[in-house]
Amino acid sequence: MFEARVAQAEILKKILDSVRELVEQGNLDCSGTGISLQAMDSSHVSLVALLLKSEGFERYRCDRSINLGINMQSLGKIVKTAGNHDAITLSSEDKGDVLGLMFESTEQDKVSNYEIKLMDVDAEQLAIPVAEYSVCVRMPSAEFARITRDLSTIGDSVLISCTKDGVQFSTTGDTGSGSIVLRQSSSVDDEKKAVVIEVQEPISLSFATKFLVQFSKSAALNESVTLNLGDGVPLMVEYPMKEMGYVRFYLAPKLSNESDDEEDGEE
Amino acid sequence: MFEARVAQAEILKKILDSVRELVEQGNLDCSGTGISLQAMDSSHVSLVALLLKSEGFERYRCDRSINLGINMQSLGKIVKTAGNHDAITLSSEDKGDVLGLMFESTEQDKVSNYEIKLMDVDAEQLAIPVAEYSVCVRMPSAEFARITRDLSTIGDSVLISCTKDGVQFSTTGDTGSGSIVLRQSSSVDDEKKAVVIEVQEPISLSFATKFLVQFSKSAALNESVTLNLGDGVPLMVEYPMKEMGYVRFYLAPKLSNESDDEEDGEE
Amino acid sequence: MFEARVAQAEILKKILDSVRELVEQGNLDCSGTGISLQAMDSSHVSLVALLLKSEGFERYRCDRSINLGINMQSLGKIVKTAGNHDAITLSSEDKGDVLGLMFESTEQDKVSNYEIKLMDVDAEQLAIPVAEYSVCVRMPSAEFARITRDLSTIGDSVLISCTKDGVQFSTTGDTGSGSIVLRQSSSVDDEKKAVVIEVQEPISLSFATKFLVQFSKSAALNESVTLNLGDGVPLMVEYPMKEMGYVRFYLAPKLSNESDDEEDGEE
Repeated sequence: MFEARVAQAEILKKILDSVRELVEQGNLDCSGTGISLQAMDSSHVSLVALLLKSEGFERYRCDRSINLGINMQSLGKIVKTAGNHDAITLSSEDKGDVLGLMFESTEQDKVSNYEIKLMDVDAEQLAIPVAEYSVCVRMPSAEFARITRDLSTIGDSVLISCTKDGVQFSTTGDTGSGSIVLRQSSSVDDEKKAVVIEVQEPISLSFATKFLVQFSKSAALNESVTLNLGDGVPLMVEYPMKEMGYVRFYLAPKLSNESDDEEDGEE
Repeated sequence: MFEARVAQAEILKKILDSVRELVEQGNLDCSGTGISLQAMDSSHVSLVALLLKSEGFERYRCDRSINLGINMQSLGKIVKTAGNHDAITLSSEDKGDVLGLMFESTEQDKVSNYEIKLMDVDAEQLAIPVAEYSVCVRMPSAEFARITRDLSTIGDSVLISCTKDGVQFSTTGDTGSGSIVLRQSSSVDDEKKAVVIEVQEPISLSFATKFLVQFSKSAALNESVTLNLGDGVPLMVEYPMKEMGYVRFYLAPKLSNESDDEEDGEE
Repeated sequence: MFEARVAQAEILKKILDSVRELVEQGNLDCSGTGISLQAMDSSHVSLVALLLKSEGFERYRCDRSINLGINMQSLGKIVKTAGNHDAITLSSEDKGDVLGLMFESTEQDKVSNYEIKLMDVDAEQLAIPVAEYSVCVRMPSAEFARITRDLSTIGDSVLISCTKDGVQFSTTGDTGSGSIVLRQSSSVDDEKKAVVIEVQEPISLSFATKFLVQFSKSAALNESVTLNLGDGVPLMVEYPMKEMGYVRFYLAPKLSNESDDEEDGEE
């Protein structure tokens, strides 16, 4: 028997909004410690890792570990219909073939029950590299969303260059070029609006714009996002969700065989 | 000579919004007692009946009964351009070939005059059955809209099951199933948010989801909607408009030859 | 060296929004007195004339006159990404092949630099006729936008008829006809909401609806718009921008060989 209840649907709605555009289907790995999901996007380029810790739920019970193969579109659509303040209970029988969802409305005498058919999802367990990052940038997630969207009108790849003074996002395309620099925040009135840069070693790596845009749509999860970069390892974009866990996105750098991308030494 | 004036365009805008997606063209039957319209939707499955009583108008005059065959799209588009607080006067000469509309703006010195060409609309006068209903459910119209929209992502037909305790809307589709239960409101703080169920006899009938969705878009007409159900008669969904009259939608139940729909006895 | 800085991006954003749907590409003529642009729309029917006076900028320097051939779509897209309160600096080297844009955010330590490639734009300098207008109508720009949009659902051309009492916009189409009359404002509480009509001689001219709709989308530039009409000369629609300059649109009348348009004498 698996059962997990959150008091407020809002957090689940945001999480599913954040992953369902990238991931068509995936396995929810439910165990005593929580629910996790790892999945490649449908083009098999980027990777999404989601962790929802058991402590983050109002009630959590998982008698033995199970894998729930789920169509993320269907799940997302259904969870979207919950009111933000509804309680949601997920459940599954040990040998069941459905995931049950119950929404309870606080405002009125309304109870909704949904069942989503489980499916077999090809489950190559992905070994996510435990990487050493040379640079960690924490910045407002809305700003990250805006920068990636703004640059996406110009070029297909974005070069992220980072020194201890600031981080630069730049791109080049047929019509011209663009580059945006954020400076390390000097005094921090509002922690959430701060740009904080930790640098072991300056770095300059290039990534496909469209995936950055996709990742950055998760801004609703947290006001801050961290970008973790290291030579030879994938970029890791993390949206922490307090006691609940996190959503992480991984994306390998582009090889710098395009002229635009060979400016690594410019810092 | 026919002439009818409402002081506030808003009510006419809402009425036309509510019917013009279903009804392409129809006859406005104007008589001394008011204006009525009965029309099948363009797929000839559901029926719309509209009544605007003469008392609901600021000024009303109809020397002799006339039928105005109207393209509801054109009428809807034009009335939509009126300001919510404009006065609207409808008029037609006894042997005229146009419906005249005059909008007068209170805020400024602006007068708009429109003429819509009349057309011959095949006018089988539809005999709407005077039915005995076993169940009448009054509920918030926004809730009805939400439920039908939520279930429409799952299945093509919705089973409405009603006992004196509550009303259940359920559906089944390829990806799973869903069911939403509203309980009879126990104490009613706000009359408009109440769910009130009158039951002669429990009932369970199945309807095409898409028409329920269509009907429920009329939520702007009234904060409450009533669903009237009876064995062997069409569902009647009514949006009353105070002294003005009503908009009613009729829809025959689906025959329960689909497995999903044979659960009539489940209550 | 050319360099021009505005303290608030908002005004540039509005200007580009107003012209970039009509004009695909054009030459920004930069001289000591300011920046001007004249261009036909892509169908070569209407004409846009834009003037940004040097006094309107926070800083302005133009050592010698240059022509910057620009794709207005690209420029518009990039300027749109600026925050409303960002400072924008435009710049170009004397023999450069790009237009530089720098956005400086006041709220945070963010600087964006863009470069747009210059292009050769066929630059027939258009001789805009210095016309004598018989009628000048000043009216709220939102009202002009609304009237043109409302009438566009009915007919392809709009007859503008003006006497000293009022201005009438009318159209006829397959489904019927419409006409909207605005009276000269008698007492003016709010100057910006006034309809002020100056008439040397009553006039009645017909114009293609779609261009009027297009022009009227510039309502963000000013709460008032003026329509200037004269026999035998193009309509001139002007949105003044205080000390900054103006955006003007020119459109030749339709010849009145359609029955709808031969009602010139109706006043």
